[in-house]
Amino acid sequence: MQITGRTRVRRLPARGSNEWADICAILDAAFLAHVGFVVDGQPFVIPTLFGRQEETLYLHGSAASRMLRELEQGIPACVTVTLVDGLVLARSAFHHSMNYRSVVAFGTARKIQEDSAKEEALRVVSEQVIAGRWNDVRLPTAKELKATTVLAFEIQEASAKVRTGPPKDDAEDYALDIWAGVVPMAVQRDHAIPDPLLPAGMPLPAYIK
Amino acid sequence: MQITGRTRVRRLPARGSNEWADICAILDAAFLAHVGFVVDGQPFVIPTLFGRQEETLYLHGSAASRMLRELEQGIPACVTVTLVDGLVLARSAFHHSMNYRSVVAFGTARKIQEDSAKEEALRVVSEQVIAGRWNDVRLPTAKELKATTVLAFEIQEASAKVRTGPPKDDAEDYALDIWAGVVPMAVQRDHAIPDPLLPAGMPLPAYIK
Repeated sequence: MQITGRTRVRRLPARGSNEWADICAILDAAFLAHVGFVVDGQPFVIPTLFGRQEETLYLHGSAASRMLRELEQGIPACVTVTLVDGLVLARSAFHHSMNYRSVVAFGTARKIQEDSAKEEALRVVSEQVIAGRWNDVRLPTAKELKATTVLAFEIQEASAKVRTGPPKDDAEDYALDIWAGVVPMAVQRDHAIPDPLLPAGMPLPAYIK
Repeated sequence: MQITGRTRVRRLPARGSNEWADICAILDAAFLAHVGFVVDGQPFVIPTLFGRQEETLYLHGSAASRMLRELEQGIPACVTVTLVDGLVLARSAFHHSMNYRSVVAFGTARKIQEDSAKEEALRVVSEQVIAGRWNDVRLPTAKELKATTVLAFEIQEASAKVRTGPPKDDAEDYALDIWAGVVPMAVQRDHAIPDPLLPAGMPLPAYIK
């Protein structure tokens, strides 16, 4: 991984980082990425699940997916991951902000051909989305693997941006009679809803309790 | 708005829609977008707040923002909004999925020049992020407006994709002794954290209670 003009954090350097540990921490706290690629000069941004292993992000989907068919050609791609941590309410409209963690990663993808490598990559994605699940599932058949494209996106450059903490207002605005602070936000999991077709009384697995 | 090869939903048509009402409902339930644009053949995907008014998505940020300086030139752009509603746990690895709502919108942006139009666009963004807040804040000064770029991204084409409901497994897999169902997920707001510099006893505004 290297740092160039694409990923050097240009503004508000206090918010930015090119440290790999910072980048990994954000990637590993997420499971949804937005993938950017270009077809005939038109950018596309598509949401997709991912799983990280070292400097590789695994992406998967139907073999008919336009995104995967484009990416597997090794075209320039951008994978962005964003976690929203809160709304920052300042006294001035101008200083309103968001607490968040994000990673912007550049690189290219290649198609994984071999079945056992595909299955291992799918396991990495599955475990990132819901750790522990993979051990329970009916594993992919050869036919299912054939219908699934799995890509290895290799991160060539990446940067992280993080904002935390309370609002920062202009000195003279602190005297205003305006509420200021942070509204924390997070993605929460709710109680699992069993498939109506599940036999009655089947216990919930520990990993979704 | 029109429908072309860029936005016609190609696979799983039951999940896709080009209906404007469906698209609006998803856009209006969100406040974070991922914006794609291309510089020298390299795609960039950047998270940003937005607010919708009719077929326009307002974006804003520092006048020094690379994203905004590129977009204001009217280059092709893609704005994608994704809401994660749950993890779909099927009996087979293959049929695992995600419940979600997403919109992919194509168009171009133009810079809003006039101060009163900029302020109105900022109000639209603010109200989309946290309805009711704008009436309370110290409004932007002329200097702050000058330091802020506000863009109007006009949606030329858009499509929505939605998945809801329980997993769908292959007929023979329903006999397996594997838990299946949905783990609902949603972005939740937690109790507001007052700015430590706020005078004691200032009441919480109703819009964040």
